[in-house]
Amino acid sequence: MSAIPEEFLKKTAQLSAEVIKPFPRSQKIYVEGSRPDIRVPLRKVSQDDAITSGAPEKNPPIYVYDTSGPYTDPTATIDLLAGLPALREKWIAERGDTELLAGPTSEYGARRQGDTALANLRFEHIRAPRRARVGCNVTQMHYARKGIITPEMEFVAIRENNMLQQMRADPGYEKLLRQHTGHSYGATIPDEITPEFVRAEIAAGRAIIPANINHPELEPMVIGRNFRVKINTNIGNSAVTSSIEEEVEKLVWSCRWGGDTLMDLSTGKNIHETREWILRNSPVPIGTVPIYQALEKVGGVAENLTWELFRDTLIEQAEQGVDYFTIHAGVRLAYVPLTAERVTGIVSRGGSIMAKWCLAHHEESFLYTHFEEICEIMKAYDVAFSLGDGLRPGSLADANDAAQFAELETLGELTRIAWAHDCQVIIEGPGHVPMQKIKENMEKELEACHEAPFYTLGPLVTDISPGYDHFSSGIGAAQIGWYGTAMLCYVTPKEHLGLPNKEDVREGIITYKIAAHAADLAKGFPGAQVQDNAMSKARFEFRWLDQFALALDPDKAMAFHDETMPAEAHKVAHFCSMCGPKFCSMKISQEVREYAQQGMDEMAARFVANGAEIYREI
Amino acid sequence: MSAIPEEFLKKTAQLSAEVIKPFPRSQKIYVEGSRPDIRVPLRKVSQDDAITSGAPEKNPPIYVYDTSGPYTDPTATIDLLAGLPALREKWIAERGDTELLAGPTSEYGARRQGDTALANLRFEHIRAPRRARVGCNVTQMHYARKGIITPEMEFVAIRENNMLQQMRADPGYEKLLRQHTGHSYGATIPDEITPEFVRAEIAAGRAIIPANINHPELEPMVIGRNFRVKINTNIGNSAVTSSIEEEVEKLVWSCRWGGDTLMDLSTGKNIHETREWILRNSPVPIGTVPIYQALEKVGGVAENLTWELFRDTLIEQAEQGVDYFTIHAGVRLAYVPLTAERVTGIVSRGGSIMAKWCLAHHEESFLYTHFEEICEIMKAYDVAFSLGDGLRPGSLADANDAAQFAELETLGELTRIAWAHDCQVIIEGPGHVPMQKIKENMEKELEACHEAPFYTLGPLVTDISPGYDHFSSGIGAAQIGWYGTAMLCYVTPKEHLGLPNKEDVREGIITYKIAAHAADLAKGFPGAQVQDNAMSKARFEFRWLDQFALALDPDKAMAFHDETMPAEAHKVAHFCSMCGPKFCSMKISQEVREYAQQGMDEMAARFVANGAEIYREI
Repeated sequence: MSAIPEEFLKKTAQLSAEVIKPFPRSQKIYVEGSRPDIRVPLRKVSQDDAITSGAPEKNPPIYVYDTSGPYTDPTATIDLLAGLPALREKWIAERGDTELLAGPTSEYGARRQGDTALANLRFEHIRAPRRARVGCNVTQMHYARKGIITPEMEFVAIRENNMLQQMRADPGYEKLLRQHTGHSYGATIPDEITPEFVRAEIAAGRAIIPANINHPELEPMVIGRNFRVKINTNIGNSAVTSSIEEEVEKLVWSCRWGGDTLMDLSTGKNIHETREWILRNSPVPIGTVPIYQALEKVGGVAENLTWELFRDTLIEQAEQGVDYFTIHAGVRLAYVPLTAERVTGIVSRGGSIMAKWCLAHHEESFLYTHFEEICEIMKAYDVAFSLGDGLRPGSLADANDAAQFAELETLGELTRIAWAHDCQVIIEGPGHVPMQKIKENMEKELEACHEAPFYTLGPLVTDISPGYDHFSSGIGAAQIGWYGTAMLCYVTPKEHLGLPNKEDVREGIITYKIAAHAADLAKGFPGAQVQDNAMSKARFEFRWLDQFALALDPDKAMAFHDETMPAEAHKVAHFCSMCGPKFCSMKISQEVREYAQQGMDEMAARFVANGAEIYREI
Repeated sequence: MSAIPEEFLKKTAQLSAEVIKPFPRSQKIYVEGSRPDIRVPLRKVSQDDAITSGAPEKNPPIYVYDTSGPYTDPTATIDLLAGLPALREKWIAERGDTELLAGPTSEYGARRQGDTALANLRFEHIRAPRRARVGCNVTQMHYARKGIITPEMEFVAIRENNMLQQMRADPGYEKLLRQHTGHSYGATIPDEITPEFVRAEIAAGRAIIPANINHPELEPMVIGRNFRVKINTNIGNSAVTSSIEEEVEKLVWSCRWGGDTLMDLSTGKNIHETREWILRNSPVPIGTVPIYQALEKVGGVAENLTWELFRDTLIEQAEQGVDYFTIHAGVRLAYVPLTAERVTGIVSRGGSIMAKWCLAHHEESFLYTHFEEICEIMKAYDVAFSLGDGLRPGSLADANDAAQFAELETLGELTRIAWAHDCQVIIEGPGHVPMQKIKENMEKELEACHEAPFYTLGPLVTDISPGYDHFSSGIGAAQIGWYGTAMLCYVTPKEHLGLPNKEDVREGIITYKIAAHAADLAKGFPGAQVQDNAMSKARFEFRWLDQFALALDPDKAMAFHDETMPAEAHKVAHFCSMCGPKFCSMKISQEVREYAQQGMDEMAARFVANGAEIYREI
């Protein structure tokens, strides 16, 4: 402890109350799997009884998929200095295919480790990194293809099911489980997600579990078209300085609102140390774009990038525990001129860095030429590929053009190479696309990339909405999610304008949770409608506190309600501020229901009294 | 003036600065039609030159469809006490088919007029109401069917075109006019909107121009599937008191951000006087739900409503100038029991009022039985029908059910009756609908209602997003707009929770402008992509001030930008806060373009030097 100055301890040990406060009417529960150390977290929301004309009717608890990690568990001890418990450590160790290293094997990692000036910044409890034993392959895909169901696979199966089997067995859920038939656009979602189904999907490359063996703290999740649609969030300090404490706070905030994975796009001096803090405290998979850090290492001069430096950066980050790397290996030299006539050229940072490198050297991208060597690194730690769309369109005008689709073809070719190494792969997608061109993106991706999971940024369906791009991209995200995209990368209201603050992040996440959930509903994911049905029933029964608890953002729902009707009594009032007591349609509707019931009973009685004949002579 | 106390004058004469401040780089222009009193407003946004490596390149002005009325015209004199200029008065008078009445002919209107206690609330310059002469029909549909192109029709043709022909004739717009081919789902949008096309669409019932002869202040607009998708906003004080001044301010605020029409859903004591103030100051069509006021007149007891009272309310409001009435004539007695097993019953206020009336009397709805008499009133003032969806679903669970579609069939039947009277009709739609069930709504509406324009509330694609329902409904709105809905009724973040404040209204409107614009783009509306293309070019050229000016919400775009980079100098900086100067992908991309250009020139030179043969022997 002595290496960390008092002041820093105080700063980093504290999360603000708002990021960890418990959700209303909620309890963190854990569903045990086939072994006691498979404990899948869920949020259980309890509901009030319905007070109707008759006896009180029970409303059963609703289960919510929970990405918030131990931070919302009041029984958990949170110590940012120690990091989260290493849930998966035993699973990884007992597979017997890894070895603990003496220390970082990357040149850069070793250098940072040895730099005493960094002691006050450094996460204290750094574990020795783990790596595949020589000749071993430690990816989830490798196990899946060997027919092994890992604890990670079982974990995500339980997580995706979200108590569906238990609800089906309980008559109290019968009405809540009613759901419209989905239109799946070719997705083949089973009625129950079994561990074996997870295995088969991963073996086929249709899904991944991003889970670096050096990130044992994470609660496994799955990304694939036949599972719940996921969302990714980004944090990063960019050019503005931001403390380590702030970055960890952002991570916890992102997990709280439903971010399934998080990309750390930080730049700046202490990026290595910041990443360590984030990983050690993250219950969700962490992704990075290693080329950003590599570029920093060469002073921002793209031409000076080398394969060796990039390779060292991959190992550095893999040994810290990064779960997936965005790698823009599809930006080939020959494609760069295809962007010259574009309205907005190359808008991907990684893409533009590589384009510049290719042009400066007039050589094929080293990411492409060294791709098999990258695979060797990925499979030694189980880092998943997120094959970057460096040539994605940055405007409607450039959507679905030759540059974009040329790169997509190459990503498909690289997918096959990665799969030959049993490396897990997802494919990044656009961008800015008008609605009528979105479906083509999904179809082309499925075909060119052999059904590897698609991971898209939006797409934005118009260019003229700065300040509201979370929403214009959310429209596209809902649609492409429905068509088959497995993970949606969120956009905040500050897109194109500046850096998101905490409220922007929350706004962006909830917007994307809505898009992802809308897609699950449209695809007909089993059980997806339970929470909607429960919310609607709570609405009809004027159970305000249950409505807040069942909302994607309970805090905001309650705050908005209280703006108009702050009195506590109004939370049980049989009307709301929109109509007031006289005009309330829900109230009238309840009366209608009683009246109709009574009326039908009367008609039925008369029918029987008249001889109960369906056709009577006049 | 003496009737209006000093204090009130001061209150009502003032709009706050924020609702009328001019938009940046914008100028209000008027395009003249075939006669000098047809002056169609547009907002002209000027742009800076592009500073590229060569000579400065001109960027032409961009034209924005403008709903803000004279309030954003610095040359206009705004006097809320006098109301807006009566643009259409001459057009109406010269048709010679109307007469000026001595005063209100409704019992209620006359009573309010004669009540001296209301003098201090009353709009001072009340005109004598106008009505069709006996035997005359003054609807736009009537004229259209007689082959007459009214000034209103010409006005909207110019407005829809938005300078398209002028831009096409100017080579400076060539690249900006490039647009992706739309997918129109059966809409037949012509390459140029002519006055004759408008007439034909109105004659066919596929479009309406809501334009009561007693609302001569309005700037005509068209609602139809083959025109730009429109949005409606709602204001209303509900149970909470709200001053007349506040209501007018809300109206102007709504027009500022792009509300194409506005529904006044006010209730309470001075609803009649409030409506007068709104109408006299409104450049956009105003809609109401007359049953709300009728219910107030009977003390909120639905059973006590009568046809006579409702009829008087229609005439009262028609003589004030309301442009369209929501009438829930499709809520038939036989359909009410169909809602009994719903999760959320009847959620439409109007629907539940009528359902209650039907059940209480065990009689067919008087709106249905007196429908032809309603038509007689509508055509005497040209009030358009907005046939209400009183049985719309209030939850995903109830979407597309028997009650909803039974009512829709009846709305189709009523449409035919209204059309037999040459009355203009639009059809209201849901509600809460999961994505995969949205298209069915549009298809059924087109079929059942003979292509009368559809006007939907959202639909919300999930029930669990209170606090963000503007967005979850916006997802549905963008889709149904694409499929063919002509007007989208906005939803604010406060939906289901409370009354929207000014920021909520703005947020709701911009969200819906995005949805409507995304739909225009997807349908391939000619010229729809110009503003997007201009924005993207401005982005690529780092013209920050142009980006703000071209945004749907320039104020917010600028405010967000300034949060991170407040310095004025940064507005011309060749990078932005997201990446900083080193990482800027746009900047790298410009270098790529120059490099590629140079590279291609070199290659071209070599090609020529080598004989300029496409195929050469090796």
